[in-house]
Amino acid sequence: MSEPDKRERKGREVRRVARARHALAKLPLLARGIPVTEMHSLEALEAIEHNAETVLEEIGIRFRDDPEAVALWAGAGADVQGDRVHIPRGLARHLLKSAPAEFTIKSRNPERHVPIGGNHTVFSSVGGPPFVHDRTKGRRYGTLEDLQNFVRLAHAAPAIHFQGGSMCEPMDIPANIRHLQMQYSHFRYSDMPCEGTPENPVNARDACRMADLVFGPEYLENNTVLIGNINSNSPLTFDSNMSGSLREFARRKQGVLVVPAVLAGAMGPVTAMGCMTEVLAETLAGMALAQIVRPGTPVILGSFVGAISMRTGAPTFGTAEATHMIFATAQLARRLKVPCRSGGSLCSSKVSDAQAAYESMQTLFATVMAGVNLVTHAAGWLEGGLVASYEKFVMDADQLAIMHSTMRGMDLSPSAQALEAIREVGPGGHFLGCAHTQAHYETAFYQSTIADYSSYEQWSEEGSLTADERASKVYQQTLLDYQDPGMDPAIEESLLDFIARRQQEICRDAA
Amino acid sequence: MSEPDKRERKGREVRRVARARHALAKLPLLARGIPVTEMHSLEALEAIEHNAETVLEEIGIRFRDDPEAVALWAGAGADVQGDRVHIPRGLARHLLKSAPAEFTIKSRNPERHVPIGGNHTVFSSVGGPPFVHDRTKGRRYGTLEDLQNFVRLAHAAPAIHFQGGSMCEPMDIPANIRHLQMQYSHFRYSDMPCEGTPENPVNARDACRMADLVFGPEYLENNTVLIGNINSNSPLTFDSNMSGSLREFARRKQGVLVVPAVLAGAMGPVTAMGCMTEVLAETLAGMALAQIVRPGTPVILGSFVGAISMRTGAPTFGTAEATHMIFATAQLARRLKVPCRSGGSLCSSKVSDAQAAYESMQTLFATVMAGVNLVTHAAGWLEGGLVASYEKFVMDADQLAIMHSTMRGMDLSPSAQALEAIREVGPGGHFLGCAHTQAHYETAFYQSTIADYSSYEQWSEEGSLTADERASKVYQQTLLDYQDPGMDPAIEESLLDFIARRQQEICRDAA
Repeated sequence: MSEPDKRERKGREVRRVARARHALAKLPLLARGIPVTEMHSLEALEAIEHNAETVLEEIGIRFRDDPEAVALWAGAGADVQGDRVHIPRGLARHLLKSAPAEFTIKSRNPERHVPIGGNHTVFSSVGGPPFVHDRTKGRRYGTLEDLQNFVRLAHAAPAIHFQGGSMCEPMDIPANIRHLQMQYSHFRYSDMPCEGTPENPVNARDACRMADLVFGPEYLENNTVLIGNINSNSPLTFDSNMSGSLREFARRKQGVLVVPAVLAGAMGPVTAMGCMTEVLAETLAGMALAQIVRPGTPVILGSFVGAISMRTGAPTFGTAEATHMIFATAQLARRLKVPCRSGGSLCSSKVSDAQAAYESMQTLFATVMAGVNLVTHAAGWLEGGLVASYEKFVMDADQLAIMHSTMRGMDLSPSAQALEAIREVGPGGHFLGCAHTQAHYETAFYQSTIADYSSYEQWSEEGSLTADERASKVYQQTLLDYQDPGMDPAIEESLLDFIARRQQEICRDAA
Repeated sequence: MSEPDKRERKGREVRRVARARHALAKLPLLARGIPVTEMHSLEALEAIEHNAETVLEEIGIRFRDDPEAVALWAGAGADVQGDRVHIPRGLARHLLKSAPAEFTIKSRNPERHVPIGGNHTVFSSVGGPPFVHDRTKGRRYGTLEDLQNFVRLAHAAPAIHFQGGSMCEPMDIPANIRHLQMQYSHFRYSDMPCEGTPENPVNARDACRMADLVFGPEYLENNTVLIGNINSNSPLTFDSNMSGSLREFARRKQGVLVVPAVLAGAMGPVTAMGCMTEVLAETLAGMALAQIVRPGTPVILGSFVGAISMRTGAPTFGTAEATHMIFATAQLARRLKVPCRSGGSLCSSKVSDAQAAYESMQTLFATVMAGVNLVTHAAGWLEGGLVASYEKFVMDADQLAIMHSTMRGMDLSPSAQALEAIREVGPGGHFLGCAHTQAHYETAFYQSTIADYSSYEQWSEEGSLTADERASKVYQQTLLDYQDPGMDPAIEESLLDFIARRQQEICRDAA
């Protein structure tokens, strides 16, 4: 390569890095400027609602090994038979009237509070994978270092305003004390709000106690700073870890996100209508229980929907059935006047290839058009959620920034209408150099951090890199550029003291 | 590998091929069961419409080197200044009232007629690339064999019901006789309807004359069997090849598809509102001209929208601006009561990687939700349209089949509501073996031909193939499985005779 060529190549590299850095500023939280899409008819929604009430009343919901939840339901007017709670038609819906239609999740940095509900759509990162993947080290169990890296990547992502649950499981930490390190990592390495560890009532209580240390002893009484992700054991069951955790978050008036994980053909019927009936019955039961524990508890109607392959039994994503269910989830939540959570960037692919991207974008676009309020798993999800991918994280985050612009809607201002520019350029001219284009040059469009727009020749000369190969460099650079938000040393010390004490207690109890 | 392992692997391969074959049956043409999304406000649409009329009247449209078009406009009441036609506010819209809101493109096989407009969305294949690409032979100029291969792939694709324009340019055929081979290939190797070669009036006339041979001498007078893709030379210009070709198709009462190709920041203003103003002005001028030539000519309002990278000047796709413009195109066409064409599976990527899939699905999902009637470039598009990719074709076609299911909407039947299945399975059970699932086993979900849903271990054992690597096998198998629709030998002979005669004439005229 000649010297000028080398200089030009170097120049391009510098500009690429500059672009990536430029993109790092957090995008503003915005109310959507485009309407939500009401995909399904009133007839469909009313049928699901009617059937869900039938399920609640006639089949009932099982609260396994949680006599306290069962007793609460009995007190609220349900017909209890063993651990099965039959909820009279309309009761859950009635109880839910005390839930707020919108609420704010507070952050330790007041600039990072996040609105949940209404016409807000908030993206958060992948949660729960035991494995991580990057192109250099391949697929492996996640560690605490990986988790903290993903917190840093989420912190830096312009269109991510909320941290998901554990972005990966830190498998190098013993399971019974893992939650302490996870909650600490979320509080410490980003000042965005986050979920609380929800695995069981003990973890939920520890998460809230750590939040007390971060926010002050009385703060949680009047503010939501955590939400707990409560998965029902579909079909129609809550186990005591989840219902106990739900009660713990509700007791502290923290957010309760009820999410049936229903794959059509496995945990739910093989049809979208059937699955949505189940999803609505389970979320109604969970959200209403939170209101029984403490009226006014912020709740979110969640769904995690997919289908199983009828050939292999494995989960599939980005299908028509999933799309139908994402839209239905958002519509049902709006009719209940509670915020909703669904979708994300879900895929089955093992690597960050075209399958991953097709499936993720099928899911994400549906989620955005549906008007889902909290989009978890929006970045980094791979292999049906078994893997958190570094490359996929920054690739998805890039797409989230595009979606953020899409939701903003068209600029209708006189300047954007550009009639004078059209007049100036006239028939047969071009707009590259016109004053209007120059005036909008820097800010006109979102600059992708991943996409390659160079010529075939230039792209070849630069190594014919695929998107995931470029993403490797982007995530590494993003970690290098990470700006630690810092933390009040007194708070940090109190958290570390708490963790040390709790670890001792837990290990002693286990011995 | 042990013998049982080999047998199992072979068994999986057999099942994979069986799945691909199973999927080959054409999906039914359907009226969408989901509503269109009206993304933009009445205020936005009215502003675009008002501005477009201002452009038509005050700035005017240039018809370059086409005095006949200018004369037609003068006769219709426009104010003509040289080759610039100033169209009084409302005139184009008034002229357009004679255009049909819906029409049918007839095929030589009556089972393959295609409805255009209303609540129909029809997918067609990529058109126009000079290059082709597959993983084996890499990127190279397209040939006639490639073009015919793509016709075969489109013919076999379950969710593609219309052939696009030339799926690749057969660069091995001299440019001045190329259109004859292209039109023949479309007629001969598929019985789906197709576009007519539109490059200039001579080619348009030849396409119609070949259609006469296929359909019979009087047939075209009362039936639309071709549409001509007429690109304006944005901004605000039609050159004589295009306006002449438009007049030729209109004269024969064949479909006229007017498509400004506007990249924001280059051929249009750097804003979506500005570009849509230009798109509407140009399409109004083109579609109205078709009505002047022959009232009742079927027309389609088209847009091909993207933006240029503000850093490299190269075209970008799958951006928020493109999404906004796709929705606006469909809304504006509905208000004009003409069918529309936009979107597709557009991308800038050089290979069928995650960038290609993200961008394509951003475009395609928007196109489908917007209610675009004719989705050209829906399969095979790569590298900003410079390349037709074999692998991307079958990957996109797989996504189109998913979109087809999405547009069908949820099944609301009592069986799909599945209340009895939920009752049968009950809390804590599973649906894998239940009667309801068994009853829907074969038909419940679309079976992807590309996606891999196996376990990580199995996927690794099978070679850790990415989606585009699997797509290589799928397209090769699809070509092997291609079922020639055949053609009446007398018609085929007449077409070949016509081509031979026209080739002689053209070569003699060129000498």
